[in-house]
Amino acid sequence: MSGNRAAGDERSVAEKVFAIADAFSSAGELSLTEIAQRAELPLSTAHRLVAEWVEWGGIVRGDDGLYRVGMRLWKLGVRAPTARRLRGVALPFLEDLYELSRENVHLAVRDGLGVLYLERISGRSAVPVISDIGSRLPLHATGVGLVLLAWSPPELLDELVASSPRKYLANTMTTDAELRPRLAEIRSAGMATSVNEMTQDSFSAAAPIRDHTDAVVAAVSIVAHADRSSDPRYPLAVGVAARGISRALGWRS
Amino acid sequence: MSGNRAAGDERSVAEKVFAIADAFSSAGELSLTEIAQRAELPLSTAHRLVAEWVEWGGIVRGDDGLYRVGMRLWKLGVRAPTARRLRGVALPFLEDLYELSRENVHLAVRDGLGVLYLERISGRSAVPVISDIGSRLPLHATGVGLVLLAWSPPELLDELVASSPRKYLANTMTTDAELRPRLAEIRSAGMATSVNEMTQDSFSAAAPIRDHTDAVVAAVSIVAHADRSSDPRYPLAVGVAARGISRALGWRS
Repeated sequence: MSGNRAAGDERSVAEKVFAIADAFSSAGELSLTEIAQRAELPLSTAHRLVAEWVEWGGIVRGDDGLYRVGMRLWKLGVRAPTARRLRGVALPFLEDLYELSRENVHLAVRDGLGVLYLERISGRSAVPVISDIGSRLPLHATGVGLVLLAWSPPELLDELVASSPRKYLANTMTTDAELRPRLAEIRSAGMATSVNEMTQDSFSAAAPIRDHTDAVVAAVSIVAHADRSSDPRYPLAVGVAARGISRALGWRS
Repeated sequence: MSGNRAAGDERSVAEKVFAIADAFSSAGELSLTEIAQRAELPLSTAHRLVAEWVEWGGIVRGDDGLYRVGMRLWKLGVRAPTARRLRGVALPFLEDLYELSRENVHLAVRDGLGVLYLERISGRSAVPVISDIGSRLPLHATGVGLVLLAWSPPELLDELVASSPRKYLANTMTTDAELRPRLAEIRSAGMATSVNEMTQDSFSAAAPIRDHTDAVVAAVSIVAHADRSSDPRYPLAVGVAARGISRALGWRS
């Protein structure tokens, strides 16, 4: 029942408090036992610290006895300036893209070897995608991810290739030999288009968002049905939106 | 420099960890001294615990030496099922309302004597409003707030009136004598319309969202220019959207 570290756990109390939060990083609801296991804490310690989390409101206990992330953490999290500012500046442009396309419109930032979705606007009839706000997908298999990878330090590609990236579909590129020329092409074109790399029958056009220092800080994309991949309006619209968001962030060409 | 509680502070370590997070509940960026003051901790304790927060990624330290909420908390917060599920179900309906009106569209839940905004979609030319995702405004002065108050236990009105609610504008109702008949009227109409109660020149039409138990769990609104207050389409559209969201949550009339 107790975690692996139970004997001689040298973590501070704060680290144990955070370990409990981390238990929810890939789960919507957990029992106390599951929290203890994931946080590698003895059940008694987990019980005491979870009670403090619940008292504070960061975790809530449902009538079913399971624990979930509470609104107190939601309220705190939305105050993160990175997400708040970028989303605030980008939203009108994302809405323009959505009105043009009625497809999925994404705003994403890099998070390690993954891409983190800050915003998604989707029409009812848009192609189904697995991304959602707060979800994390791999850099190498998504349009926004390839854009963020293309403008990252070259060491990141080495790290990614060494991490045995998953080949989701036949088109997913996973090797240095495939990705290196692809990323050069993306940099040269100023944007990425991809078909069937993460989700079957989907097409993505993605472009980089730059801040006032000319650094690429985010990416915007439209994800549509694969049969739209030859429609020249999508890459153009995404490119224009990305430049608009960049300008609103203080970027000058 | 040290907080009021420094002598004989009986809070647990976890409570002190949470007190540091709470320092950011109404501030975007803080110095270490400000965090210590708000958390009522000695500077040395604040320094040590903030370092643990930064190590974890829940708080980040900028080049300017100020501390801000980090993306780790954002990622965790967006997992809160209340916000996630409600937003996911409501978003297509909010987008419909936005396309109809090109005005501000809000989704909100009650948070004590306030209303917490879970989502906002705004056109570029929409009337400016002070609400934003994660922001909190008073129940008695907003359309969504009046709706949530109307379907709350009656004790909440007593509590609100006793809290000396602020009269933002001439139209803002703050007394029991004003609010009680108003809330009865809202319950009878099934929705609330308000003009110039929180923001000058603004009109709000708001309706309740119910879950499968028939409980009012959220509210949706359109906020437009005051000159739209006689446009019969807005209350109708908001009412239809609220019922649509309710049905998607399992409600049956």
